[in-house]
Amino acid sequence: MSTRQLKLGFILHGVGPGWGDWRHPDADPTASTNIDFYLRQAKLAEQAKFDFLFVADSVHITEKSSPHYLNRFEPLTILSALATATRNIGLVGTLTVSYSEPYTVARQFASLDHISKGRAGWNVVTSWLSGSAENYGKPTHPPHEVRYRIAAEHLETVQGLWDSWEDDALTRDKASGEFFEPSKLHTLNHKGEFFSVRGPLNISRSPQGQPVIFQAGASEDGRNFSARYADAFFTENSSFEASQAYYADIKRRAAAFGRAPERLNVLPALRAIVGRTEEDAERLYREAVSLIRVEDALVALARSFNEHDLSQYPLDGPFPDIGHFGAESNRSSSERIIRTAREENLTLRETALRYASPRREFVGTGVQVADAIEHWFNGGAADGFILFESLPRQLDAFVSEVVPVLQQRGLFRKEYEHHTLRGNLGLDVPENRNTAARRQAA
Amino acid sequence: MSTRQLKLGFILHGVGPGWGDWRHPDADPTASTNIDFYLRQAKLAEQAKFDFLFVADSVHITEKSSPHYLNRFEPLTILSALATATRNIGLVGTLTVSYSEPYTVARQFASLDHISKGRAGWNVVTSWLSGSAENYGKPTHPPHEVRYRIAAEHLETVQGLWDSWEDDALTRDKASGEFFEPSKLHTLNHKGEFFSVRGPLNISRSPQGQPVIFQAGASEDGRNFSARYADAFFTENSSFEASQAYYADIKRRAAAFGRAPERLNVLPALRAIVGRTEEDAERLYREAVSLIRVEDALVALARSFNEHDLSQYPLDGPFPDIGHFGAESNRSSSERIIRTAREENLTLRETALRYASPRREFVGTGVQVADAIEHWFNGGAADGFILFESLPRQLDAFVSEVVPVLQQRGLFRKEYEHHTLRGNLGLDVPENRNTAARRQAA
Ligand SMILES: Cc1cc2nc3c(=O)[nH]c(=O)nc-3n(C[C@H](O)[C@H](O)[C@H](O)COP(=O)(O)O)c2cc1C
Ligand SMILES: Cc1cc2nc3c(=O)[nH]c(=O)nc-3n(C[C@H](O)[C@H](O)[C@H](O)COP(=O)(O)O)c2cc1C
Repeated sequence: MSTRQLKLGFILHGVGPGWGDWRHPDADPTASTNIDFYLRQAKLAEQAKFDFLFVADSVHITEKSSPHYLNRFEPLTILSALATATRNIGLVGTLTVSYSEPYTVARQFASLDHISKGRAGWNVVTSWLSGSAENYGKPTHPPHEVRYRIAAEHLETVQGLWDSWEDDALTRDKASGEFFEPSKLHTLNHKGEFFSVRGPLNISRSPQGQPVIFQAGASEDGRNFSARYADAFFTENSSFEASQAYYADIKRRAAAFGRAPERLNVLPALRAIVGRTEEDAERLYREAVSLIRVEDALVALARSFNEHDLSQYPLDGPFPDIGHFGAESNRSSSERIIRTAREENLTLRETALRYASPRREFVGTGVQVADAIEHWFNGGAADGFILFESLPRQLDAFVSEVVPVLQQRGLFRKEYEHHTLRGNLGLDVPENRNTAARRQAA
Repeated sequence: MSTRQLKLGFILHGVGPGWGDWRHPDADPTASTNIDFYLRQAKLAEQAKFDFLFVADSVHITEKSSPHYLNRFEPLTILSALATATRNIGLVGTLTVSYSEPYTVARQFASLDHISKGRAGWNVVTSWLSGSAENYGKPTHPPHEVRYRIAAEHLETVQGLWDSWEDDALTRDKASGEFFEPSKLHTLNHKGEFFSVRGPLNISRSPQGQPVIFQAGASEDGRNFSARYADAFFTENSSFEASQAYYADIKRRAAAFGRAPERLNVLPALRAIVGRTEEDAERLYREAVSLIRVEDALVALARSFNEHDLSQYPLDGPFPDIGHFGAESNRSSSERIIRTAREENLTLRETALRYASPRREFVGTGVQVADAIEHWFNGGAADGFILFESLPRQLDAFVSEVVPVLQQRGLFRKEYEHHTLRGNLGLDVPENRNTAARRQAA
């Protein structure tokens, strides 16, 4: 197909992403560490030809954290487990640069890429909760701006390690006994502000050359980092217009970094609720909203403000003045929340409940939800979406009600074009930097 | 079965563990990053009812390293990938305490244990090559003795994190909205010499309670560490007598730490070569030996001496005086090599070739190899073995020629007793330390 195609990812989170989703009568409250639950969803998403599965991550909990943070699989292990149970779907996982070592990160993702024959992706995050530091013996959590400097150096180091071996370095010549061509093995010798890593990596270049980079930075620093390094952008926006603005901005920044913007996919979060009829969808929506307790919604909201305790403020008073708690934490999300509260004059309770509820725009029948998706896709607000399951079996509903409509409209594939994630996302295998240097020198 | 049973592990290493094994005409020289190769071996070992698969590891290569070190899967990812393709066989992987963070290690092994429904094991190593430090931005590699102090603190921290959640902490009561019982979630608050980790872990207690601990320390410090913490011991000994001595020593030490020695398994490395006839085995043995080049054997030997360059010494002179290179590196292995060379008056060349060759004792027909195994098992030299594949398809030969003999003799299971690694190794699920504390306080 030559027309522009929608890209779809599905986030695996076991129990639902809302604080109370696990309480739904049909929810499996053990889902987050239930491999059979994960296998079922992964296979279903693959049957529907989704581009990728995504496993989010964080490295710090308190007793107030939501069920889906408290108890969950670690991304690299669960994605590897899914690799041998699937064939075409991409396998994308979050890993934080603030609390990991480039050598280990490079190895684990390269290994996943080999295991899956070219389906690995890394969502590069900086971790925004300062409590994370205490699980890694660090005196303090780095400030927001420093985290993005760490991120750039970390990622460049990892990418350098991924190029340790040129594509044809492993000659494996049984007759001569030469296993590899020494001039095609490269030692990185990185010595930087935050990391020193010698290399080379002890795994050959992987099928995708480099696993695909995902990123969701939304602040000024975050956007610059994303635009420079990421192949696909996750985003969480409050409206179609906000997403349009983000879309234009990130593509402009990417172009300024000399990258081809049409290759890079903007993927907003999609919390669809799909019913067989409009009434059915409305009933499901109300069901989802009824699971939200205001205490939980407050804690959910507090995550964008470094877990600052919001229960100390009057619930029905105006949204309190707590911007500085967000600035060094999830800066962009906290700013968005404050902006909305101010503009619409919301109370703390209203803000918390709004933030915790699915968006009306994506509630409806298969055709209605497909319409909304098409609107965003054709209106310069999205190249695709990352789907969250807001209620049990909503992936099933999306697959049976929405995907066929998108396929009929020629917006979404009926068969995988490739067996690699890069191939399906329309991304080339990047040339090994060392091969390029050799070529340029010649 | 009530009689004592042999335990068998199989080490997955892709291309053979010898420097030249990949050159064998039947060898797949791409095996080390070939998932189909790994899947085939894993399934074969499971059909034969092996207790576990093992993936070794190291975090530093140079261009002199052997093919099986240069390019290999990372253990946690490959074991997770095998988890969903197998049902009963244990999944044991090496991870170094010198270059990893307890919080991440605890999560990844707990996650593997959940994914595999109770089959994870961790081979705790300290890494002996000082070059490892340069891949992790450390100024120096810790000395031998310090590494074992780090190991004890690291492992205790990981084990503490594994007990963050009591077994019945996750109540998941939809009616009341209580997802967990707060008094059963525990924050570790560890502050030690090498690590500070707050906790709690963001994954519930895994099916085995705690993944099984493997260890191969052989020096004085290494043995004390093993005896205190490990559930199973890997060992590499130069003879039946040496293994007997090790066996008695490690069990005595374990008993001194208040542990039940009969529960703990001593598993020597087994480089068997199995032929259909004696002549066939002899031919295979000669084939294996013929693949060894003395240059490679020198480099292999040098690994026990922190990669000290051995090519500078006369090949046919007496074994050189290089003990100090080994003392802070692989202390026990370097001492064993020197002792053997001195006692038998070997040249450098003879020592290197001896060290690189399979042992004659385990070369023979299925019955002969089974005899040797039985001799070690009944003679107080082993509770089982960790099998290395010395030539292509030797796992197949072992499975078809040796395993049935062991089964007929009642030495080895015909069916798995359990679906967990602990169950098959005869180990109980340890009580959660926090539950025990509560019980004792009551
Ligand atoms: C779809 C989506 C998924 C995300 N997944 C994660 C995640 O797994 N872990 C994480 O720490 N942050 C995640 N984030 C948050 C971003 O990494 C980032 O912190 C946030 O967008 C704020 O951007 P900023 O750092 O530029 O302020 C995600 C964001 C979006 C939109
Ligand atoms: C069967 C077996 C497997 C081993 N696997 C590894 C491994 O994967 N990684 C590693 O660094 N060391 C491995 N070792 C080496 C031990 O961890 C240890 O360094 C060695 O036995 C020396 O002991 P010492 O540290 O007490 O001197 C292994 C040893 C044996 C016998």
